[in-house]
Amino acid sequence: MIVLGSTGSIGTNALEIAKKFALHVEGLCAGSNVALLNEQIAQFDPKFVVIGDKELANQVRHPNVLVGEDGILQMLELCQSELVVNALVGFLGLAPTLKAQELGKKVALANKESLVAAGAFLDTSAIIPIDSEHFGLWYLHSHRPMKRLCITASGGAFRDMPIEKIPHMRPQDALKHPNWSMGQKITIDSATMVNKLFELLEVKWLFTCKEYDAFIETKSIIHALIDFVDGSTTAHIAGTDMKLPISFALLGEVKEMVLPHVDLVQVGSLEFRAITAERYPIWEIKQTILDNPKLGAVLNGANEAMMQHFLDGKCTIIDLAKGIIKAIQEFENAEPNCIEDVYIIDKQVRQFCKNLY
Amino acid sequence: MIVLGSTGSIGTNALEIAKKFALHVEGLCAGSNVALLNEQIAQFDPKFVVIGDKELANQVRHPNVLVGEDGILQMLELCQSELVVNALVGFLGLAPTLKAQELGKKVALANKESLVAAGAFLDTSAIIPIDSEHFGLWYLHSHRPMKRLCITASGGAFRDMPIEKIPHMRPQDALKHPNWSMGQKITIDSATMVNKLFELLEVKWLFTCKEYDAFIETKSIIHALIDFVDGSTTAHIAGTDMKLPISFALLGEVKEMVLPHVDLVQVGSLEFRAITAERYPIWEIKQTILDNPKLGAVLNGANEAMMQHFLDGKCTIIDLAKGIIKAIQEFENAEPNCIEDVYIIDKQVRQFCKNLY
Repeated sequence: MIVLGSTGSIGTNALEIAKKFALHVEGLCAGSNVALLNEQIAQFDPKFVVIGDKELANQVRHPNVLVGEDGILQMLELCQSELVVNALVGFLGLAPTLKAQELGKKVALANKESLVAAGAFLDTSAIIPIDSEHFGLWYLHSHRPMKRLCITASGGAFRDMPIEKIPHMRPQDALKHPNWSMGQKITIDSATMVNKLFELLEVKWLFTCKEYDAFIETKSIIHALIDFVDGSTTAHIAGTDMKLPISFALLGEVKEMVLPHVDLVQVGSLEFRAITAERYPIWEIKQTILDNPKLGAVLNGANEAMMQHFLDGKCTIIDLAKGIIKAIQEFENAEPNCIEDVYIIDKQVRQFCKNLY
Repeated sequence: MIVLGSTGSIGTNALEIAKKFALHVEGLCAGSNVALLNEQIAQFDPKFVVIGDKELANQVRHPNVLVGEDGILQMLELCQSELVVNALVGFLGLAPTLKAQELGKKVALANKESLVAAGAFLDTSAIIPIDSEHFGLWYLHSHRPMKRLCITASGGAFRDMPIEKIPHMRPQDALKHPNWSMGQKITIDSATMVNKLFELLEVKWLFTCKEYDAFIETKSIIHALIDFVDGSTTAHIAGTDMKLPISFALLGEVKEMVLPHVDLVQVGSLEFRAITAERYPIWEIKQTILDNPKLGAVLNGANEAMMQHFLDGKCTIIDLAKGIIKAIQEFENAEPNCIEDVYIIDKQVRQFCKNLY
């Protein structure tokens, strides 16, 4: 297989699973963590390696080092592997997803932005999502008629904070996620609840159902629930560890222990809360996005641009969400008809958001 | 179909489902509630009727009234229906289960004592359990390898009471069940946790797995859970209403709404507790019973005899459990080899327990 984003949280877990199940790793791609990449090279002996930052290329201990976004696309063409783990962060993960599909490879997709921005132009039947929520839904899927697919949110770093304090929070505050240890972008996306809106949109692209929703389960132990027509609800419960969804994504089915079971008696209690637009302003546009999934390109572009403003200290985290909502209003009729349109819309949206501050 | 125990909680719910799905009711059997039985006769026009109490036979408005336990067996022979809902209470429900199986009829079984006392001599493939826990397990069942089947308990009437107060509780106190509205025997069986031990034993007869366990979920919203080998746990969640398991028992699969879904956000929180032998002394023998399921005949006979002592004010509810444990010790080698042995053991155990007070 090929692992894109090999030094991140998903990438390192994927390589642990590869080791555990003796899967061959043909290609690795990292952004800038050369030290860890070199360790991975020594351990997995990949045929090709890509480093995102070209300045670092000469530090990578490998005879075939490719560089940057083009390097990723080249590596995909050069590799024989039929499975690509795409754990890249952000919109730049879309091009490798498209290339992998063009080459007939399956994509184990942790890069949410691919489906969010361009779900309409991907072959979802060749995508296996790497996410505890989508894995949970897939695991619970049955022949019985379903009414609603539900995923849970942790609530992010500002879940328990008085609402009036949230505008004063800085990027480093948003990075204190209560349950999961993840990268910077997804942790801030959790604090704004944009991450959950992304995931709901992914659910819509990946599964067919009448209704889709999300709520907060504060311990991130229940990941997904299905309401069946008869009145039954089933829930998927597992530890907060990505090795489970990654194992299934890499192996199809897993018949041996990947994680220890959650001991509910030891957990003691669970708490459920609604996701409110008061605390998470982005939730205002949930239904708009679900009703118009092609707005995902606007949603994603605006989120990345607004997050840059937030990281640069130019706006609050509440303004981040408000900027996205403004972009959705401005581009409400932006309907991409092909993948090129997605890139055009993305550029326009980013420019629009850039001009907001 | 034939409904045994038609005026009880399960029976009335079964008839509601029969009405909703226009199922033909050929036979009805009630213990002593003639008024309700007459209403049911007027509504469902059954061909045969049994009344438990022969003194009341002349009050039943039906041309074919049979009487008592023999009457039930006669009715089963006379009826064409291939489905028997057995919602009788206690050991007397066993003979009709056996007769129904002898006649090749399917049994929708709410009479737990049948499986507990004589699981080894029943064709479990022709039994559909009517119980939210077993229904939950059946609903969650999948092709994936399972590690542990788990059912939940409400904890019964004395769940939140200081332990030292429990010996002072009278039968009327034990009847205050926190979540379910049920008959007298099962409500006391919930307070002692004998009901959950019965259900665990039923799980063992009905499903094959490595481990079986139970814990308290105080709101009775999660009914059953399966721990799969990979580390996933799935849970069945539904309202505290027997119409869901009954509908599936009567119809096989149900593709329309029987109950509204549980709204977890409205529920707000869930609490899980271990079942301790300190509060529920019967839990001491859980593993003994699971390891020796044929001791179920002793367990059931002792429970019915000890409950009579408790109802008669001769012993505390703690002594009730202790009497069962004594009986299990006394009869630890009692292994029935045929159904007649079950009846012999039952008689001996009752005599043993009778002599305790």
